[in-house]
Amino acid sequence: MAILVTGGLGYIGSHTVVELLNNGFEVVIVDDLSNSEKFILKNIEEITGKKPVFYPFDLKRKELLKQVFDAHPIEGCINFAAYKAVGESQAKPVDYYENNLFSLINILQEFKERNISNFIFSSSCTVYGQADKMPIDENTPLKMPESVYGKTKQMGEEILIDFAKAYHRKISLLRYFNPIGAHPSAKLGELPIGVPNNLVPYVMQTAAGIREKLNIWGNDYDTEDGTPIRDYIYVVDVAKAHVAALQKLMNDQSEEGVIDIYNLGTGKGSSVLEVVKAFEMANNVEVPYQICPRREGDITIAYANVDKAERELNWKSETSLEESLRTVWEWQKYLNSRNS
Amino acid sequence: MAILVTGGLGYIGSHTVVELLNNGFEVVIVDDLSNSEKFILKNIEEITGKKPVFYPFDLKRKELLKQVFDAHPIEGCINFAAYKAVGESQAKPVDYYENNLFSLINILQEFKERNISNFIFSSSCTVYGQADKMPIDENTPLKMPESVYGKTKQMGEEILIDFAKAYHRKISLLRYFNPIGAHPSAKLGELPIGVPNNLVPYVMQTAAGIREKLNIWGNDYDTEDGTPIRDYIYVVDVAKAHVAALQKLMNDQSEEGVIDIYNLGTGKGSSVLEVVKAFEMANNVEVPYQICPRREGDITIAYANVDKAERELNWKSETSLEESLRTVWEWQKYLNSRNS
Repeated sequence: MAILVTGGLGYIGSHTVVELLNNGFEVVIVDDLSNSEKFILKNIEEITGKKPVFYPFDLKRKELLKQVFDAHPIEGCINFAAYKAVGESQAKPVDYYENNLFSLINILQEFKERNISNFIFSSSCTVYGQADKMPIDENTPLKMPESVYGKTKQMGEEILIDFAKAYHRKISLLRYFNPIGAHPSAKLGELPIGVPNNLVPYVMQTAAGIREKLNIWGNDYDTEDGTPIRDYIYVVDVAKAHVAALQKLMNDQSEEGVIDIYNLGTGKGSSVLEVVKAFEMANNVEVPYQICPRREGDITIAYANVDKAERELNWKSETSLEESLRTVWEWQKYLNSRNS
Repeated sequence: MAILVTGGLGYIGSHTVVELLNNGFEVVIVDDLSNSEKFILKNIEEITGKKPVFYPFDLKRKELLKQVFDAHPIEGCINFAAYKAVGESQAKPVDYYENNLFSLINILQEFKERNISNFIFSSSCTVYGQADKMPIDENTPLKMPESVYGKTKQMGEEILIDFAKAYHRKISLLRYFNPIGAHPSAKLGELPIGVPNNLVPYVMQTAAGIREKLNIWGNDYDTEDGTPIRDYIYVVDVAKAHVAALQKLMNDQSEEGVIDIYNLGTGKGSSVLEVVKAFEMANNVEVPYQICPRREGDITIAYANVDKAERELNWKSETSLEESLRTVWEWQKYLNSRNS
């Protein structure tokens, strides 16, 4: 029983591969290494004592994907492979649409032809936009995301829902809030190529002296300290939710198909300044920062209602913000040791 | 100055190719013949006395598309190539998303890399769903279409708008209402493969005895005679609008790019029963019909406000419903003569 994990050497992908292997699944990774590094594969093997199959190619290459399905008895897919930088997506929309949609649709063609079910899709809370009330549950009306990145996620959801309905297949759309942190082994973590797009890797690199100062984009939002509020969730908890969602799909005998949708968050919001302070406290380091003008497209507040995942997946986030941020610093130390 | 016309042997495509050739454009057609026939090319040549370049391949084949751009100085594209059957799109969503999105994105990659502007997209009034008030102008809020076909149109619009913004290119989204009719020469027309999906071809085949009876899907809608109301526009008028939209884009010297959006309709609504009666009157034939239950997804009423196209393109529909329906019957007679 093999599970195809696309983007399986990426940030959330690699943590999920570890959880899958620890739960007895065979794993086949396809990752083109465009936003990941090969040593992650070795680290996964060290952590788990198991060897996932690995194919380094771009999922737009249909004929290679077909060979993977020919070679392995694939019974499900967790699809992490996607470009994910919001700012870049605005500058390179055609590449984002091409990469994120072609890879998804090429896999669905194989699923369709081979009668495979069980597809898990990395979606994002960006599909809610600035929701009218907090916390955000799964019935919150969707708004067309402003970014091209966000639109590829919303389109991906639509395509998968239509796929599940037409062919009676089982899918799960997991809407991530803000995954942070690194593996407790400090051998896996977020590996930004170039200047980080997300807060926590930037905080990490600033604390390490790689970046001079953290830019905080606006402190005049309508929140207690003026900085935007997000729901930061530990990446290993996110990874475990994927296994739970996959097991639920695989156990479901419904012949009509299944369309599961879950928010993955903690249910608690933290402001940017709170994250910076928590990082400093947790790791006893300093993070110099400066307040900059607001960044276009940033919303004020978003945190999840996570009752549905708890009820249906028997899953919830177990790791505190401080604990998550400690793993980040251990990961930075590991990266330092690799470079020295 | 060559214009790429994808799906150029299809219904609206072939009429537009004729108008382009008559207006002095060089035309390069790519059409995979999946929903069109080769004799249309010969007929285009007979009508215009000119020879468009023709390549028979599927636009998903990127490497062939690249060769076309290498071989011709393409300065614009009118993109008709798409699957278009609403019912079928629900049953085969993956094929619809693949075909309609890949072909669009593959062309945009070539446009992006070669610095080409001027892209005209076949959109549809389906992006408005059941609008709250009539007539529908271009500022009417969009609703996520219910059908996969409609979603591919809405996604195509989004992709093109992001393309135009990011790369400062010029695009025109033409939202067709209900194109009908055939070329005055009776050498081009709608050529449904199998059972027709649209009203007028079904009426035509029923009058010709190919279908026993026309099914009218519901007569209990909230309209005068109980049947749904649409805005039927003559296909040659639609084709002329494409030339006008292309000329506007090509004349626009803006360096910021252009995003044009136009409804193509007559501004007048006609019910299904009115169309049937008009066809009978115009052609002095009988169209037997029966009332059936409503069909899922059909809206009650949709007709266009076409002021914007008239103002900005100096274009409007000139042909009456009766005249359009006469051309349909001439087209059927032509098809009969071909088969005998």
